[in-house]
Amino acid sequence: MTRVAACQISLSIENPAGNISHANQGIAEAISHGAQIIVLPELTNSGYVFTSVSEVQDRSTTLDGEIISQWKEIAHKNDVVIVAGLALSVESRLYNASVIIDKSGLLGWYAKAHLFGEEHQFFKSGEKPPLVVNTAHGRIATMVCYDVEFPEWVRLAMLDRAALLAVPTNWPNLGQLIHGTPMEAVRVQAAASVNKMVAVAADRSGPERGHSWISSSVITDFEGNIKIIANRESEDDVQVLVADVELPTDTSITPKNDVRKDRQPDLYSGILKY
Amino acid sequence: MTRVAACQISLSIENPAGNISHANQGIAEAISHGAQIIVLPELTNSGYVFTSVSEVQDRSTTLDGEIISQWKEIAHKNDVVIVAGLALSVESRLYNASVIIDKSGLLGWYAKAHLFGEEHQFFKSGEKPPLVVNTAHGRIATMVCYDVEFPEWVRLAMLDRAALLAVPTNWPNLGQLIHGTPMEAVRVQAAASVNKMVAVAADRSGPERGHSWISSSVITDFEGNIKIIANRESEDDVQVLVADVELPTDTSITPKNDVRKDRQPDLYSGILKY
Repeated sequence: MTRVAACQISLSIENPAGNISHANQGIAEAISHGAQIIVLPELTNSGYVFTSVSEVQDRSTTLDGEIISQWKEIAHKNDVVIVAGLALSVESRLYNASVIIDKSGLLGWYAKAHLFGEEHQFFKSGEKPPLVVNTAHGRIATMVCYDVEFPEWVRLAMLDRAALLAVPTNWPNLGQLIHGTPMEAVRVQAAASVNKMVAVAADRSGPERGHSWISSSVITDFEGNIKIIANRESEDDVQVLVADVELPTDTSITPKNDVRKDRQPDLYSGILKY
Repeated sequence: MTRVAACQISLSIENPAGNISHANQGIAEAISHGAQIIVLPELTNSGYVFTSVSEVQDRSTTLDGEIISQWKEIAHKNDVVIVAGLALSVESRLYNASVIIDKSGLLGWYAKAHLFGEEHQFFKSGEKPPLVVNTAHGRIATMVCYDVEFPEWVRLAMLDRAALLAVPTNWPNLGQLIHGTPMEAVRVQAAASVNKMVAVAADRSGPERGHSWISSSVITDFEGNIKIIANRESEDDVQVLVADVELPTDTSITPKNDVRKDRQPDLYSGILKY
């Protein structure tokens, strides 16, 4: 079994130092519970509700910046994997990114390819598939928030043999009615189920410039069953969900069926059309 | 609003006449409730647990057979759309098929492309995309059971501009633990949500040769919310679920976002690989 954590933390664009402090509190708490894989929200360093590119720029980090250095040190010292969303500046371009770090260092970074709402104003969209890397604790894929609503994208992670999908997210409260499991979590369950991958989505909390969030971080097993889901009503700045999950070693779902091998890719060419 | 129905009926390979009788009872009840679109399970005419090809052959129908003729008459007389799973024989090939019929007649037939379990022994797999047709009550797509676990396949229905996805199904009880919504229904919810389509899955009941079913027919709105789900504990041979749903007229989900237009098909070519 692998112990995984989703750190649901309060973020605010007005308080970048507070964001990092909440993130590091979350990581420390997850480590204290024995977590081996720790997932943080989208745009952990910045918050979300930007009004100008310079606000993003001011709050962004670089690949050799302080935050990633800190997390490399924490990952090295504690033998944990950290997956986190960051406003990232690479070669003077700003990305809504996710990084994967383990004890050996930064394993890669990913840029959100499906931008939501106003994000096009602030970020360049990614042009590479979901990042999938071997880590000290299993083969992990990452993508960011709205990306997971594109089943083609999730499929690419499975086809690249990910065992766990880590999704930093800021799920906006758009006034949607929530009865039972929020649809955001339902979509994560289905993504896990049809791809036989564990899924960990780390959402955020904290009101920001009149916007709020559904604060529904969730961890599922590889059949899509919810192992734990956040308490949406909590007012804590740091809420750490921890679950023990088995990482899949193949994609079979019955003795005769396999979600990978049963695909009929020769019939899917229409999916490339608009 | 459109009134839709899922007829969850008891099927048995031992009693083909009973299968058709249950189907016609379900259709009549749905019509009495004012349903305009009526969905029936997979393999309505035959049952599921075959032991030989001749058993399939004996229970199959042809496109000009009695069952389809009956349903054409019912659809014509009552101005309803009927979508039903059938063991279908076409040019001496047996298919696990779905047909769409409206007042103007048989609009098309579809052959299940993703065969489950032992089905390869009994059926030729389909080689055409999900069937999507304009009917008297909206643009409707159909696919069968396991097909819906392939998000690429559901996507093809959306790309062909379906407003409603009708899924005849026989969801086997494989001993899976069910807490809350069964995963089979969760996957249907997500399929509806990420494609902005109404979804109607008609499951079956009735023990058959030692096999049983989760009997969890479900109707969702185009956001994936469950409008109604079957009572799994019911012992009725005919359980008709009815719901009023709005059929979507576009694929927008917010003023800035659209599940169709936000796709990045240029980045998806990897999905065609095995």
